[in-house]
Amino acid sequence: MKLNEPRMFYAQVLILICLLASSCAMNGGSTQNGTLTIKEQGSFAAGGTVITSPGEFDPKNLSATGGQTLHGDHLYTFYQIPEDARQLPLVFWHGYGQFSRTWETTPDGREGFQNIFLRRNFPVYLIDQPRRGNAGRSTQPGTIAAVPDEQKWFNIFRVGIWPDFFPGVQFSQEPESLNQYFRQMTPDTAPININVNAEAVAALFDKIGPGVLITHSHSGGMGWVTVLKSDKIRGVVSYEPGSGFIFPEGEVPPSMPSSGGTLKAESVPLVDFMKLTKIPIIIYYGDNIPAEPMDNPGQDQWRIRLDMAKLWVEAVNRHGGDATVVHLPEIGIHGNTHFPFSDLNNLEIADLMSDFLKEKGLD
Amino acid sequence: MKLNEPRMFYAQVLILICLLASSCAMNGGSTQNGTLTIKEQGSFAAGGTVITSPGEFDPKNLSATGGQTLHGDHLYTFYQIPEDARQLPLVFWHGYGQFSRTWETTPDGREGFQNIFLRRNFPVYLIDQPRRGNAGRSTQPGTIAAVPDEQKWFNIFRVGIWPDFFPGVQFSQEPESLNQYFRQMTPDTAPININVNAEAVAALFDKIGPGVLITHSHSGGMGWVTVLKSDKIRGVVSYEPGSGFIFPEGEVPPSMPSSGGTLKAESVPLVDFMKLTKIPIIIYYGDNIPAEPMDNPGQDQWRIRLDMAKLWVEAVNRHGGDATVVHLPEIGIHGNTHFPFSDLNNLEIADLMSDFLKEKGLD
Repeated sequence: MKLNEPRMFYAQVLILICLLASSCAMNGGSTQNGTLTIKEQGSFAAGGTVITSPGEFDPKNLSATGGQTLHGDHLYTFYQIPEDARQLPLVFWHGYGQFSRTWETTPDGREGFQNIFLRRNFPVYLIDQPRRGNAGRSTQPGTIAAVPDEQKWFNIFRVGIWPDFFPGVQFSQEPESLNQYFRQMTPDTAPININVNAEAVAALFDKIGPGVLITHSHSGGMGWVTVLKSDKIRGVVSYEPGSGFIFPEGEVPPSMPSSGGTLKAESVPLVDFMKLTKIPIIIYYGDNIPAEPMDNPGQDQWRIRLDMAKLWVEAVNRHGGDATVVHLPEIGIHGNTHFPFSDLNNLEIADLMSDFLKEKGLD
Repeated sequence: MKLNEPRMFYAQVLILICLLASSCAMNGGSTQNGTLTIKEQGSFAAGGTVITSPGEFDPKNLSATGGQTLHGDHLYTFYQIPEDARQLPLVFWHGYGQFSRTWETTPDGREGFQNIFLRRNFPVYLIDQPRRGNAGRSTQPGTIAAVPDEQKWFNIFRVGIWPDFFPGVQFSQEPESLNQYFRQMTPDTAPININVNAEAVAALFDKIGPGVLITHSHSGGMGWVTVLKSDKIRGVVSYEPGSGFIFPEGEVPPSMPSSGGTLKAESVPLVDFMKLTKIPIIIYYGDNIPAEPMDNPGQDQWRIRLDMAKLWVEAVNRHGGDATVVHLPEIGIHGNTHFPFSDLNNLEIADLMSDFLKEKGLD
């Protein structure tokens, strides 16, 4: 560099400054594989109840329950707010037998929706629902059996028909992936109570303000109930809702039989149902769901759920709503299990969700 | 600026570049209240066992257990590795009835040791031990009673003598703090098994390599057992270890009675005990621990634990070890409860731990 060429030097320095400044600015957001920049993170309990034993507390006799309290039936959430955060947080709610791990690291060790959507600048809240995982303290007693059942879940979660994986399934066949997959289950510490769960999630939204609810499987139906209880939910993304489809009174479709059980829809007053017509809703189902009845119960129970979801979306839209059901193979995305968001193609699945959020003005 | 003064301009530009570069470099670490820069974060299960039901799996009858497996008794960990990370990760292990929340947000909503030590550039692993919280899936069945017992814990954790707080206690008296505090408990999903827990934590260290173990209360004693099982633990910081003090055979002190129960030391072969003499160990106890017997069991049980810890440290050092017990009031730090790391003065408590790590070359 010749210092007697100040203009050229000035230009070069400007480029250097711009490069440095843009490197700083990039840290302010987050890149696909680089550093996550977290403005705030932490955990808290939301919702729940308190029971108190009759009598008076005796500090000399700590094992006597008189006058003692029990706080339980809350949810637990760990949240992270990235720098340059978008306005609406995403609240992720796991499915049956699962906990926050659903959204964290995938069974094969890649990033889950937690990191993916932090990188896309969304505040992310991961829930453990009441009586599950870190929200295990309940006002109701519980009994937990230790029953081997993982081949059942392998089949119901449509990874394959044990011990075979479905051809082309979006699930790593490394043994450690299955090991991690099975260990991402955790039992209920007390009986599941849909109302308790929905109240706790509504209490979370009361605390954090408006946001988008993302549900999976069993939390799908509980998510609809939560929308009835909270006016803070601005949209719902539901992966493979499994039960709890609620229809207006008088519009409930007949129960649907399958070789994996019968699915019964439920009814609510129309005035409540109408709340589901005020927000955008999208539902996704993965692959290996049969179109016709079959005798493999692991798969067949999803045939009726997909059918019921289609009827449900029709009902919502018939009443002026904005609901969509996407059967992934029909848009050319193949091999997804019951957990599309942690499958091998979960970045593609995340892109679909991003597109939905953008299209509905939720980003 | 005059472009015909290139040297002066050059100096000014250099200063600007340095300012920008140092701003980038600061993002690379993390500031006390600013952004956390996380290079990697995720969760996984470590350790555990598998049981298999006799018989053959029948995909047509999913509720039959024949040939089905159960993966359980692992630990769950959520980890974060900051940018410019120090070499040795910190592995944080909660106490009795607790889970990772212990180290996350404090009851009054401030940052816990998770964030504090991420800001100090340590990789941080938070454990839920086997059969607790998110690691609830066990190969053993469990029964959970819903027994009001929180005033007992208020007293045993030395927040005060219910309903009174200790004068000057380092605990917020806002009602929401107590609400969060009680809800940071979660029950065992199956019986506690010290060996299962120590094996799982040893498996975690096998996976992540050498690090420092930080224990609290019940995990204190399990931490000593883990040191016997793992050569990857480079140091231990133990907050208020409550039981499980292990001494060499023939050197076990007599049991210690208190109005809050009797504390019994345990024996291990000298060759095992010697592993505890190879690494630096520090133990901290908080305030409101009586020097003489008293009839409040919530406090008195800590008198004997502090006494036992002193004997234990003497035994470790007698055999060539490097162990220290710090009774916080004796160094002028007052008001700490059983949870010094989440008390109101937890930054001061963190500074003590940082000093220890630095002094022992563990940072």
